[in-house]
Amino acid sequence: MVTLLPDAAQRVRHLERVVCDGFARWGYREIIPPTFEYLDVLSAGLQVDILEKCYKVADWTTGRVFVLRPDVTAQIAKIVAMGLAGQHVPLRLSYRSTVFRYEPEHAGREREVFQLGCELIGADAAWMDAEILVLLIDSLKAVGLTDFKVSLGHVGFYQSLLAQAGLSERGCKQAELAAAHKDLPKLEQLLKRERVSHRQSRTILGALEQCGREEVLEWGRAVAGRRPRLLKPIARLAEVYALLDAAGVRDHLLLDLGEFRGFDYYDGIVFDVFSTNVGCELGGGGRYNHLIGRFGRDLPSTGFALDIDRLFNALDGGGEEKLEEQRVLVVAPASRFQRAFRVSQLLRSHGLVACYEPVPRWDAARLRLIRKQARVADMSWVVQVGPSSASDDDALVTAEKTRGRAAWTVRIRELPGLILQQGAYAHL
Amino acid sequence: MVTLLPDAAQRVRHLERVVCDGFARWGYREIIPPTFEYLDVLSAGLQVDILEKCYKVADWTTGRVFVLRPDVTAQIAKIVAMGLAGQHVPLRLSYRSTVFRYEPEHAGREREVFQLGCELIGADAAWMDAEILVLLIDSLKAVGLTDFKVSLGHVGFYQSLLAQAGLSERGCKQAELAAAHKDLPKLEQLLKRERVSHRQSRTILGALEQCGREEVLEWGRAVAGRRPRLLKPIARLAEVYALLDAAGVRDHLLLDLGEFRGFDYYDGIVFDVFSTNVGCELGGGGRYNHLIGRFGRDLPSTGFALDIDRLFNALDGGGEEKLEEQRVLVVAPASRFQRAFRVSQLLRSHGLVACYEPVPRWDAARLRLIRKQARVADMSWVVQVGPSSASDDDALVTAEKTRGRAAWTVRIRELPGLILQQGAYAHL
Repeated sequence: MVTLLPDAAQRVRHLERVVCDGFARWGYREIIPPTFEYLDVLSAGLQVDILEKCYKVADWTTGRVFVLRPDVTAQIAKIVAMGLAGQHVPLRLSYRSTVFRYEPEHAGREREVFQLGCELIGADAAWMDAEILVLLIDSLKAVGLTDFKVSLGHVGFYQSLLAQAGLSERGCKQAELAAAHKDLPKLEQLLKRERVSHRQSRTILGALEQCGREEVLEWGRAVAGRRPRLLKPIARLAEVYALLDAAGVRDHLLLDLGEFRGFDYYDGIVFDVFSTNVGCELGGGGRYNHLIGRFGRDLPSTGFALDIDRLFNALDGGGEEKLEEQRVLVVAPASRFQRAFRVSQLLRSHGLVACYEPVPRWDAARLRLIRKQARVADMSWVVQVGPSSASDDDALVTAEKTRGRAAWTVRIRELPGLILQQGAYAHL
Repeated sequence: MVTLLPDAAQRVRHLERVVCDGFARWGYREIIPPTFEYLDVLSAGLQVDILEKCYKVADWTTGRVFVLRPDVTAQIAKIVAMGLAGQHVPLRLSYRSTVFRYEPEHAGREREVFQLGCELIGADAAWMDAEILVLLIDSLKAVGLTDFKVSLGHVGFYQSLLAQAGLSERGCKQAELAAAHKDLPKLEQLLKRERVSHRQSRTILGALEQCGREEVLEWGRAVAGRRPRLLKPIARLAEVYALLDAAGVRDHLLLDLGEFRGFDYYDGIVFDVFSTNVGCELGGGGRYNHLIGRFGRDLPSTGFALDIDRLFNALDGGGEEKLEEQRVLVVAPASRFQRAFRVSQLLRSHGLVACYEPVPRWDAARLRLIRKQARVADMSWVVQVGPSSASDDDALVTAEKTRGRAAWTVRIRELPGLILQQGAYAHL
């Protein structure tokens, strides 16, 4: 992540607020995990290649190594296993956190990833898979994203295909990796090396091309035949798909039997979000029935995370309108500080943005300069607080728009109303 | 920082939102700086003892060392010096960031500090010192803190006292450090070693006891006599104090001629915030006229930061009321998922919190259990979506409070109104 300057930061914070307000309305309560974790504690939950990419520092007093969190789900699993988040299930938790991973390909750019995510903890049920997916889709719609697809699969189907074809454990892992990258040549080579029959190879390769709607489920059922380890994943996928259809989000779904995620703790329904505007996934997630168990207490769960920087980029193309706000520059001679302060505070109490700046006595040239500078600083109004013998609320001030030539002289107490009203007209 | 669990996290986020909304209304625009900085770049802005406490990691590709930011002001100074934040001054910037410092005394607890802060950049003016201080005080009042004091001084006065007493440069630094810790025995010893006259020693030690209101300024003026290097800091302090008085915040101020901060980049007005509820400062700041210059472009500036964890602790004693919200558990047989989903979304669209849970067919015992579990999960309502042949909006649902025995059977479209109305009664 580079520095986000004010315009970008404002839009990112707006995204964050809209998404997190949604999480809250769905009953997900935020928890804030620490940035550091002891490596030996967190390593129970994460595979080697993720741990290798962690940033590690030694604790000066104890010599123990800690890592900058590479993943929030594993942290939450640890917290839940320790019983800290309460005993009532289902437990709905959310987070907004930066995760840190060393990515040589994107050195500098993607050292830190700002994520918003949710976890639904406590049972292995289709309605929970569906809830997490609808919430994900609801969040994307809430920020104005329209052209996105969620590619939805079940890791169990492909893993069972590989296992039943007689692949070694190591061969299975490598084949999963190749499948995750849709690297068909590598997968083909692997299957040859592991002496998988031609018919089974064709099915394993063919599964990666199964991407679409109900027909994908039919293909899966045909392949599964009567084998329960293949039938079960397809049945769950079909059940979740039906619930998502009932919730009205079917148009955003693409069933994908080759869907994999980068974390080995996923062991059920998995999904990724793609938008046509950006070349990489905006987020994803899935079911992890045994991750919390690695920390000592078995609780089947599911969840997702969104990458806010990428979501921001995806929206840039389609575009939400610019966030409009009325910014007011209050100018006065230094001797009028107290009254200018009162005016500024009055505007702020009405939700307007007010900045004070002292000026020497004004003339026409000086006023033109102030108006120009205010425009550069993105101010929509300049309010002049001059000498006035009236009591504070009745004292007169001159309010002028920085664009155009409109100006009003009003009593201080009429000022917020004037600016709010004119601001509202500007939106028509 | 330890993990913040939902209740604490919700209150911390509420604090953050209130304070940041205030910053925005004062015209301060947020920037989001990166978590990592190259050590050789950032070190221009920070003194050795701060750099020693940084967490450092090596960049695997280039071998350069980077640090987890120990301070945001130095980062912003760098960004501003590079011209990235715009050329218009005064520039008003804010941030909400975690800073990382290795603190052996508080190992584990205070590795990361969550800070909200503001910087007012571009000129050396008393009104700017005053604006930053009023904004700080306004922010504390906005979150409900009442019993706090801002201790306000000017590093120039004490530094000049030391320099004019003939202390060596090293002696000055050591004396400043002793003064910052109010370590009078050490300071006395130092002054003896540096052979400072008895009369000057008495003044240097006496300055540390100058803490109060206008009388502190009078004491300072008397000591200064006609020496401009002592008179100038006192004059600025008096000017800022008068502006703060005009802004109505005088009751929160304590003038303190021995006020120092832990960063050597402060070179003018400085301040700390204290509350009677916590034993350490909640935040502070001051003027840094030459920090941005260290990165290449001289721009006198001032700013402050608040430590949100400490502010949260300070409020715990005095106390804001618990954040009330209406949380609704929507229960239905799995076959009614679609209708239950519709009810949940309707409630959410009215700003209520809704969670869905499937139940087998209900009887009285089952309902008692659901109500009990809902209460444990902090739900205020249980809504039962049963079979109903009416069209969706006209279908009947039963809404029941989890505390007490009140229950209503209403049409779906009447449900949000009922819950909002009853929730409003609960507050009376």
